[in-house]
Amino acid sequence: MLSWLEPKLNGDELATTSAVLDVAEELAADAFLSHYKQADQSEPRLEPDGVHVLPAIGAALRQYAELGFFAAGFEKPLGGMGLSTLVSSAIFAQFAAANIATSAYPMLTAANARLIARFGSAEQIQQFALPQIAGRWFGTMCLSEPQAGSSLADIRMRACREGTDSLGERYLLAGNKMWISGGDQDISENIVHLVLAKIPRADGTLAEGTKDISLFVVPKILPWGQRNDIAVAGLNHKMGYRGTANCLLNFGEAKGAVGWLIGNAGDGLHQMFHMMNEARIAVGLGAAALGYRGYMHALHYARERRQGRLTGLRAGPPVAIIEHVDVKRMLLAQKTYAEGALALCLFCAHLVDQEHEEGAAALLELLTPVAKTWSSEYGLAANDLAIQIHGGYGYTRDFDVEQLYRDNRLNPIHEGTTGIQALDLLGRKILRGGGAPLETVTAKVTSCCDRARSHRALEPYTHALAAAWRTVSTTVDVLRSNDAARALDNATPFLSAFGHTIVAWLWLEQATAADQAASTGRVTRSFAQGKQRACRYFFECELPRVYVWLNAVTSCSDVAAGASLDEF
Amino acid sequence: MLSWLEPKLNGDELATTSAVLDVAEELAADAFLSHYKQADQSEPRLEPDGVHVLPAIGAALRQYAELGFFAAGFEKPLGGMGLSTLVSSAIFAQFAAANIATSAYPMLTAANARLIARFGSAEQIQQFALPQIAGRWFGTMCLSEPQAGSSLADIRMRACREGTDSLGERYLLAGNKMWISGGDQDISENIVHLVLAKIPRADGTLAEGTKDISLFVVPKILPWGQRNDIAVAGLNHKMGYRGTANCLLNFGEAKGAVGWLIGNAGDGLHQMFHMMNEARIAVGLGAAALGYRGYMHALHYARERRQGRLTGLRAGPPVAIIEHVDVKRMLLAQKTYAEGALALCLFCAHLVDQEHEEGAAALLELLTPVAKTWSSEYGLAANDLAIQIHGGYGYTRDFDVEQLYRDNRLNPIHEGTTGIQALDLLGRKILRGGGAPLETVTAKVTSCCDRARSHRALEPYTHALAAAWRTVSTTVDVLRSNDAARALDNATPFLSAFGHTIVAWLWLEQATAADQAASTGRVTRSFAQGKQRACRYFFECELPRVYVWLNAVTSCSDVAAGASLDEF
Repeated sequence: MLSWLEPKLNGDELATTSAVLDVAEELAADAFLSHYKQADQSEPRLEPDGVHVLPAIGAALRQYAELGFFAAGFEKPLGGMGLSTLVSSAIFAQFAAANIATSAYPMLTAANARLIARFGSAEQIQQFALPQIAGRWFGTMCLSEPQAGSSLADIRMRACREGTDSLGERYLLAGNKMWISGGDQDISENIVHLVLAKIPRADGTLAEGTKDISLFVVPKILPWGQRNDIAVAGLNHKMGYRGTANCLLNFGEAKGAVGWLIGNAGDGLHQMFHMMNEARIAVGLGAAALGYRGYMHALHYARERRQGRLTGLRAGPPVAIIEHVDVKRMLLAQKTYAEGALALCLFCAHLVDQEHEEGAAALLELLTPVAKTWSSEYGLAANDLAIQIHGGYGYTRDFDVEQLYRDNRLNPIHEGTTGIQALDLLGRKILRGGGAPLETVTAKVTSCCDRARSHRALEPYTHALAAAWRTVSTTVDVLRSNDAARALDNATPFLSAFGHTIVAWLWLEQATAADQAASTGRVTRSFAQGKQRACRYFFECELPRVYVWLNAVTSCSDVAAGASLDEF
Repeated sequence: MLSWLEPKLNGDELATTSAVLDVAEELAADAFLSHYKQADQSEPRLEPDGVHVLPAIGAALRQYAELGFFAAGFEKPLGGMGLSTLVSSAIFAQFAAANIATSAYPMLTAANARLIARFGSAEQIQQFALPQIAGRWFGTMCLSEPQAGSSLADIRMRACREGTDSLGERYLLAGNKMWISGGDQDISENIVHLVLAKIPRADGTLAEGTKDISLFVVPKILPWGQRNDIAVAGLNHKMGYRGTANCLLNFGEAKGAVGWLIGNAGDGLHQMFHMMNEARIAVGLGAAALGYRGYMHALHYARERRQGRLTGLRAGPPVAIIEHVDVKRMLLAQKTYAEGALALCLFCAHLVDQEHEEGAAALLELLTPVAKTWSSEYGLAANDLAIQIHGGYGYTRDFDVEQLYRDNRLNPIHEGTTGIQALDLLGRKILRGGGAPLETVTAKVTSCCDRARSHRALEPYTHALAAAWRTVSTTVDVLRSNDAARALDNATPFLSAFGHTIVAWLWLEQATAADQAASTGRVTRSFAQGKQRACRYFFECELPRVYVWLNAVTSCSDVAAGASLDEF
């Protein structure tokens, strides 16, 4: 599945990576895939003693911990395996493909531990990060509140200073947190909540806005063994993704939930984005993995199912449906979506590893909302086509594709909806950020085109890619020079266009690399032809949509903004 | 919801229509909507005595029968209400919006009875159609078989001549039928199956192809009170649409299921398409109604839910999310999809009423696969956006939008998948049909543009519509002159482009009619402005996609057709 990554690694790394990926694939099949449907049918239940999840989820994650996968991406001094983010992401993708809901627990746990390792004190790391890296405790992120949703400026969780101890400044927290994945369960020894809250001013009021938001580590069970003051007020019953218990948590209904400040007061949002950014790429990667698994199911079904005859023929036995052009078209679309999204998210993981190289961090910031959104939207589109190839069977629960589709529908929503990501990309990253990361993309696109030009079949795409990227850049110039108040009105179509152009670039990279690798015998000729075919499909059938989206952006269309409320 | 239809009706018709629609709306809310979630949670069960469905479904349909809605679209001599197809379709849309799975029973029943009324003998009509028009018996359509799917040439259901009686030529049938909606249930006194089967040749073999397919009426309970030889071999467990029991039926496991030939042997496929065509428009209309209901939910939620502030503002209370431009954009898209699809399907219903006017029947044939597919694809897209506006809440089962989305996912599959409809449109209707219906569209588009031109705000769209339709027509010319064997390779993108152009035309019709109606006070100014806004959105953001799709068609791209099987 990830063989196109190979050229990026040297011999030793490749051997290790390959071995670890094999172990991951085996465990994913044995312990994660095996309870995929069961976890959908047996949702988490809220009982007086807390939330109970399907025991098979706990059993799978114990094996995952025993094999050290919680620790995959951490440095050795922290008990980690020291693998690169790229490789640990590729490992994660295997588990996400097998069972996205079960793999959400370790995804959140690793991101939680990584935040603490980055911003916590040595004692906090020892107390709260290490047990998560070992896979004994699990982690959550607590941002949203019922009244605030994505508008974090409006959170009302309060944290009042209580004292100081070896873990730092201790606070008592009170308030509600909504949509907490893994917010409670019975499969880890403890749960480490990372909670955004505001420290009240002297007069007891909370400051408006996001500047006074701080971050606290709030364990379910306190270091001295007592249950913290955190109650599960309810479980959300979802369309899919059901194995992940999603909770409404009430903190401090009695005396207050005990938590420790991480870093400095007021740094909460900045710190939380460390975890959020990792989670956004993981959401994208999970969506891509679901898209890819659906594609594999559809491909298998299309090769096995015999029905109908080729156009123009009336006699003879039925053919495998993969022979029908429209089925090929749907398979190609799935391949371009799923492998395009995988490339995008793994490229972002690679940028995490390159963080200290010039331009990498800024490029990662630019691409994070794109990796999250494009993969979510098109991973889902791939699953939709996987159902369609199965016909009526795909709509039944006898096949997995309907569940993949229901599971994947969450991804354009959580960790920030598509609309929120679009504002992040166009507002924060582009119009309020500097132009440097866009110039980095320009340089990379140019160098990609230079390399592609020597592969004759790919030459036409170099012009199309350069033109599309030039149009994106011109659009940014137009937006910079226009009325700032209206510049974000078409942020979502801009994100769509931006994402398609980035993925087109990555398809040209893939086709070029595969052709190169085939010429030296590192991949088969048909593998390279498949990459080239998918690249061609994307350039012919998908890339031209960029101009449709950008037309609305460049013309600063007020078709939506100008609508008065009684017109709906 | 359907007030834009008003100009088509005269004063008396309008009063009757309006009264009947009010009754329908009330019953839909009271008896259909009321068990919407319950029917999703309590699926049909197969027990030794047959299939049991939620009793609320039966109760709702008894009320539906008592008010005469099964009879709505039938002539008075048949016990019908004599309403036009247009009006009875508008009635159906209300029930489909409230509960698509429950409304599938009367939809199939009416279409079944209409086929018998058209092709059956007087005795067959008396015996099998009238009890359905009265709503005492329900009907099904039995086409697919497990091995054949959409490939009806490959059906193996056998019908052997047994004798003749007052109901006509009597046969014994044996074979399996798959995907039979309403195939068994415990809420009607009898079930009338219309079954496609082949009459074996003298040597006992079945002819290949579709020419020897005949149609039989096969009741669950025979006229002499005995159970027919039909067994339920299994129920399909679906992602949504769960209230409709969907069965695998085995006919003739013992002696053979008794059935009567309808019309002449060999006419089966032609006759069945009478029912199938009605069902295709009903599927499109149901999908449109689901899209419309999701839009209403999203609109309501967006007006109520307060979150965040307008771009550039940091203080003040949160605003209703309908104030956010991206939410407006998602509402507008839903409005254009749902109301566009409603317009398309109701226009088709109107063409049924005009069947004997010149060109109407051929135009209806041309538009039927479009009404089925465009409405299914974009009704679903509307439901996707309705979830997105609800954010995390939309992904929970506490709100109806997730169920609407799951229900609607069936519509691009049943009664022929999108790929099958595309072959019907481009192959049978356009390339193998005459050019007359396309010329009818040209005339209607031209006359629409002429009328729109006098409304200043609409003038720009007349050029865009004329250009898009010209490009569609040119594409057809290119396909006619090219290699016929490859002409259908891009049938699906052609259908997408064709559908978008047709819907653009109907949006311009709507905007023109609404503006006209507002100027004489028949609709409010804001209603007309809403239609104009949606029209503008469709022309700005959707219609340009036509050129992307047609580019693949005109260039006869072999990107999919040329893919070898090892490239996936």
